[in-house]
Amino acid sequence: MTKNRVTNLVSSCPEPTPQEQMRVERSHTDFDPLAMNEWLEGSEEKSQEILTMYQQLDRDPILQGNPAHYDNGTHQDRELVAARIHQMAKYLETDGLVKFWRRLNLVTIWDPSLGIRISVNLALFGNCVKGNGTPSQVNYWMNYKEAGTLKQLYGCFGMTELGHGSNVAGCETTATFDEATDEFIINTPNISATKWWIGGAAHSATHTVCYARLIVKGKDYGVKTFVVPLRDSNHELLPGIAIGDIGAKMGRSGVDNGWIQFSDFRIPRFNMLQKWCRVDRDGTVTLPPLEQLSYISLLGGRVGMATDSYRILARFTTVALRYAIGRRQFKKNPKDSQETALIDYPLHQRRTIPWLALTYASAVGTNRLEQTHARILKELDVAVAKDDKKLIHQSILDTKSLFVDSGSLKSTLTWLAAEGIDQLRQTCGGQGYSSYSGFGKAYNDWVVQCTWEGDNNVLAMSAGKTIVNNVKQVLKGKLLDERMSLAWLNDAKALIDAKPVLATKADALDPAKVLKALQTLIVKIAYTTGLRVEANGGDWDKLSFPRVKLSKLRCHQYCLETFVTDLPKAQGAMKQHLLRLAQQYCASSILLPFATDFVINKVTVDEVIGAIDGEIIEDLDALIRPYVIGLTDSFQMPDNLINSFIGKYDGNIYENIHNGTKALYSPFNSQAPYNAALTAFLNRAPRDERLRFERGDYAKEQLSK
Amino acid sequence: MTKNRVTNLVSSCPEPTPQEQMRVERSHTDFDPLAMNEWLEGSEEKSQEILTMYQQLDRDPILQGNPAHYDNGTHQDRELVAARIHQMAKYLETDGLVKFWRRLNLVTIWDPSLGIRISVNLALFGNCVKGNGTPSQVNYWMNYKEAGTLKQLYGCFGMTELGHGSNVAGCETTATFDEATDEFIINTPNISATKWWIGGAAHSATHTVCYARLIVKGKDYGVKTFVVPLRDSNHELLPGIAIGDIGAKMGRSGVDNGWIQFSDFRIPRFNMLQKWCRVDRDGTVTLPPLEQLSYISLLGGRVGMATDSYRILARFTTVALRYAIGRRQFKKNPKDSQETALIDYPLHQRRTIPWLALTYASAVGTNRLEQTHARILKELDVAVAKDDKKLIHQSILDTKSLFVDSGSLKSTLTWLAAEGIDQLRQTCGGQGYSSYSGFGKAYNDWVVQCTWEGDNNVLAMSAGKTIVNNVKQVLKGKLLDERMSLAWLNDAKALIDAKPVLATKADALDPAKVLKALQTLIVKIAYTTGLRVEANGGDWDKLSFPRVKLSKLRCHQYCLETFVTDLPKAQGAMKQHLLRLAQQYCASSILLPFATDFVINKVTVDEVIGAIDGEIIEDLDALIRPYVIGLTDSFQMPDNLINSFIGKYDGNIYENIHNGTKALYSPFNSQAPYNAALTAFLNRAPRDERLRFERGDYAKEQLSK
Repeated sequence: MTKNRVTNLVSSCPEPTPQEQMRVERSHTDFDPLAMNEWLEGSEEKSQEILTMYQQLDRDPILQGNPAHYDNGTHQDRELVAARIHQMAKYLETDGLVKFWRRLNLVTIWDPSLGIRISVNLALFGNCVKGNGTPSQVNYWMNYKEAGTLKQLYGCFGMTELGHGSNVAGCETTATFDEATDEFIINTPNISATKWWIGGAAHSATHTVCYARLIVKGKDYGVKTFVVPLRDSNHELLPGIAIGDIGAKMGRSGVDNGWIQFSDFRIPRFNMLQKWCRVDRDGTVTLPPLEQLSYISLLGGRVGMATDSYRILARFTTVALRYAIGRRQFKKNPKDSQETALIDYPLHQRRTIPWLALTYASAVGTNRLEQTHARILKELDVAVAKDDKKLIHQSILDTKSLFVDSGSLKSTLTWLAAEGIDQLRQTCGGQGYSSYSGFGKAYNDWVVQCTWEGDNNVLAMSAGKTIVNNVKQVLKGKLLDERMSLAWLNDAKALIDAKPVLATKADALDPAKVLKALQTLIVKIAYTTGLRVEANGGDWDKLSFPRVKLSKLRCHQYCLETFVTDLPKAQGAMKQHLLRLAQQYCASSILLPFATDFVINKVTVDEVIGAIDGEIIEDLDALIRPYVIGLTDSFQMPDNLINSFIGKYDGNIYENIHNGTKALYSPFNSQAPYNAALTAFLNRAPRDERLRFERGDYAKEQLSK
Repeated sequence: MTKNRVTNLVSSCPEPTPQEQMRVERSHTDFDPLAMNEWLEGSEEKSQEILTMYQQLDRDPILQGNPAHYDNGTHQDRELVAARIHQMAKYLETDGLVKFWRRLNLVTIWDPSLGIRISVNLALFGNCVKGNGTPSQVNYWMNYKEAGTLKQLYGCFGMTELGHGSNVAGCETTATFDEATDEFIINTPNISATKWWIGGAAHSATHTVCYARLIVKGKDYGVKTFVVPLRDSNHELLPGIAIGDIGAKMGRSGVDNGWIQFSDFRIPRFNMLQKWCRVDRDGTVTLPPLEQLSYISLLGGRVGMATDSYRILARFTTVALRYAIGRRQFKKNPKDSQETALIDYPLHQRRTIPWLALTYASAVGTNRLEQTHARILKELDVAVAKDDKKLIHQSILDTKSLFVDSGSLKSTLTWLAAEGIDQLRQTCGGQGYSSYSGFGKAYNDWVVQCTWEGDNNVLAMSAGKTIVNNVKQVLKGKLLDERMSLAWLNDAKALIDAKPVLATKADALDPAKVLKALQTLIVKIAYTTGLRVEANGGDWDKLSFPRVKLSKLRCHQYCLETFVTDLPKAQGAMKQHLLRLAQQYCASSILLPFATDFVINKVTVDEVIGAIDGEIIEDLDALIRPYVIGLTDSFQMPDNLINSFIGKYDGNIYENIHNGTKALYSPFNSQAPYNAALTAFLNRAPRDERLRFERGDYAKEQLSK
């Protein structure tokens, strides 16, 4: 009997063939993923730039993703990142800054520790110097001292203190002007003023920009910025500087976050960044009027994180949908020759496809945000260079809009991306929990995006407050400048009075109508929130919850508006797919999650919500399902950057898992390094013997006498 | 000027004093946390048992939590867990099994890798042997071979295959009876039949229970269980067994999950577990009728995970609320002498206090589930021992109820706990992201609970289907046996016809009415889902989404029912606090998350939902807020088990963070082990020089000739 059984040493009964299914799925695709990629990235030029970089990075022996790194400990991760900074620095020398930012944003998809460790120097330190320093100061630190090319000088960002995070104005570190020596004395007055979390401080940085209270002649001028050296050219700490590693974190183990204490550390007066505020030799302090523009330097980070959200979702919708094609489980019909692919279960579609739709929406929304940010920066430079009052005023308006938009998108999309990574991981069952699927590390590295560079709740409350105030202002008859991205709020009166915008199921399937409904809802919530603030005597804190909600709604309104605008640019079959994705985005990310608000505010009716939950979402899923591989191939992410055994292009999940695992852990090594600890308890002596028989009869007899 | 500044070397300006605030908060508490603990744990006896164990574990030098372990790499974690198994085995020798399970459940709060690594042997291997083996077989493996005391033999659980997870019946491993030698031949026929994820296989296990298709005389009898040795007494692999480490995982790095391939590996016939199915010497196969009872052995794990959900939420509500007391940020009023404590912001209350309410609800709900499980196990043993048909029938009914209830609670509560850990982490801002707050490791270790021991969606779909079928049956006039926990469905007709149960704001504040509303909603959704299944020709997969929803609602109905029942047992001031927590649980975990369903199904009206979102939740928060420290102290978790710098009993967050970090990472070591990699790029030569000046003028001149 057994003779017949082993007919084939490789496989005595049919193996699964997920890679064949992947080929079948690709053959269904009725559009060109490259053309779709251009639509997603906004232009052929941008798409081509990205694909060229993807190819370079996918093949770069130092930068490419590698499953072995999922096993790294902290020091291995940090050393890896240091080597990668070195490699990136070489690209930087020829890329120039604009192109390099694009490259760094892409690298961040699979090595966010690398991304942030370079950003700490170039963006946080660099933009702080640019935003607060004079042109000559910028030139000195970034070019002459070469911080701008990751050479000689490596800056970190000494803002956060142990006791002070979001409230920067509450920082306690002091910079006291000593007229006698023409120096500032930097000091950490107590434990809560210890600079904490400072990325790059523990090991890398040679300098920091230090946020400290300017004290001159006993007067406190509030928090200003100072360049403070930390390590000498031998990379040894300077006297007066104490630095420690803050140790393990949930993720980003490749980043050497540290704490810093300054003990009467002296710096020359001109180490203060003095674009907006100057201290003269005699201690006279000058505070020029345009300081508000300095915060534009913060916005780049938020814009980048919104874009990161799109790309991380693109990475993991690709992984989850490729796995859902290859993985089969249970037979829908006992007579089927194979088990059913996960993707063919309606619940599985509902757990995956809405994330795909959201990814498309976030692609166009964040592309618009990115383009707007780039334009404003350029125009502001021109305006300041020409000292043109009108242009400067326009730039201020644009910056205000960007402040709200980037805050809304950064907070909403980083939250959604965190949830998306986690939900998509769960759709991959046990394999989602393996490090080599990529989800775990990505999630752990990701979630700090919801906290840093403006805590999401703080950003959202601020954006929500602006919306409430704008609506109030409009209703009082003072319209917003047409330049501003919230200028559509000028229709507030008409929107508040509108009949239910979504009265039928067909309405819910019309993205333009959903956009109108969203605007109506925003205005209505903003209006009632404004009334409630007035009624409670101006206590905004009591209305924080609706303010956060408004920010989320605004993000979706921004993305949907862009989606509706960009949709007609698509060609051929793409158009139909994009319409369905837009409809799905409306149904599953907007209308259902905020259903209670839409209904209570009479922007729609129960029946429409019932139809969305009961039919629309799943009907759209079924329409989108045949194209999920084409639609994720359109993100064009190469295998080494996705870095997932279950998410490779070939779809050959089982061999990729098994061979990949064996390559990392040879089955030859069957005993663990700690084997002695295992055999110690398995082979332990009986308890009586271990207790020297002190609880036995003889002991009892002897001891009782 | 500087002379006056450093007045005190320790602190030149006032330090924060969070520990004083903690004392003030405790002085507010108007009830005895120990009495509350008894209420939470269901009895004085159980509470005392737990507190005694907490004390032992908190002080046990091997078992107690230690912040240094947050820095562990995989092999350190595994070695640590091995040492801890050794220590736990010594407790097991005197605890006895029932008490030991309690101890193991507690240990699991801070070392889930230890919990699962012991459970793999005692619960998965052990219960499989007990559920499927004859009494003599159980005695042989568990007592004579000492697997029951973690000695000599260490079993693992060889169920899941690379290609087969939830669908156990689809396993491909074969156990072919060889009549000639009276042996079974165990074989892995192809890659997808490779046993995968097997906890303990990579390094620890000496044996496995192997789920394999029984093949006798060419006939496939489906999947049965076999005890298969893997390693000899030298802890060396047996020939015919190939095992590898499956490598890194998102969490639980202390567990040595592995893969196993069997290549014509022979075991004696009696290594088959033959309580339900026997193979005689001549190959005759007998399949007795009571096999359905074998699955009760699976339910212990699910019951345990529901309880784990309560305890992990207790741990992290304690951490988050202690931090929210000590941490201050921004001043509500510029004239305030201190910044405002996080807990005094309404939004922060809304982000934390509902989790506290849920924790209380899950305490009583899971206590009931645990007690019920213990009772059923006892009764079943008696019934089987007496071979009493009526008692056996009752036990089958009870087991069926437990199957639905444990599936509902396990899936719903493990999901909520995952979300809770994550949301509570975010309320701690940056410190939540530090490993030493405990959230990161806990989350990573936790989330696999949503996938294993019955994937949450699979369990929820199954529970939901039972509810739909039960309602259908009741409406056809066939009532459920009154023993069954779903017997309240017998009122289905009346519930369907009920007017809106929650018509006013006051109704929403009455837990008994919310319970009624929940029952109404469940029956209504079950009824319409049943109709839709009939209408679509019996395709249950299309109704998976409402089935999962039903399971979640059932979990809340179960917990709320228990909360309402247990509430009157509370004494004095406790009663008022518990009522508010019950109201908050209703508002924030039941009514608002399922608002759309309540409204669409006409169980409540828009106005009530509007009031919940707009006032009720935040009004309740404000009432509960003064007691959050007392209410979390009531969980009575000791510091070393919470193992969080920001969550210690003394509330002295900043010193705990700073001193704790310095103890782990001495600031003396200011250069990293990989310092050379840092200086390599900082001190690199200019690009022209590195490129040997091959792009310079001289090269151009020479090469152009």
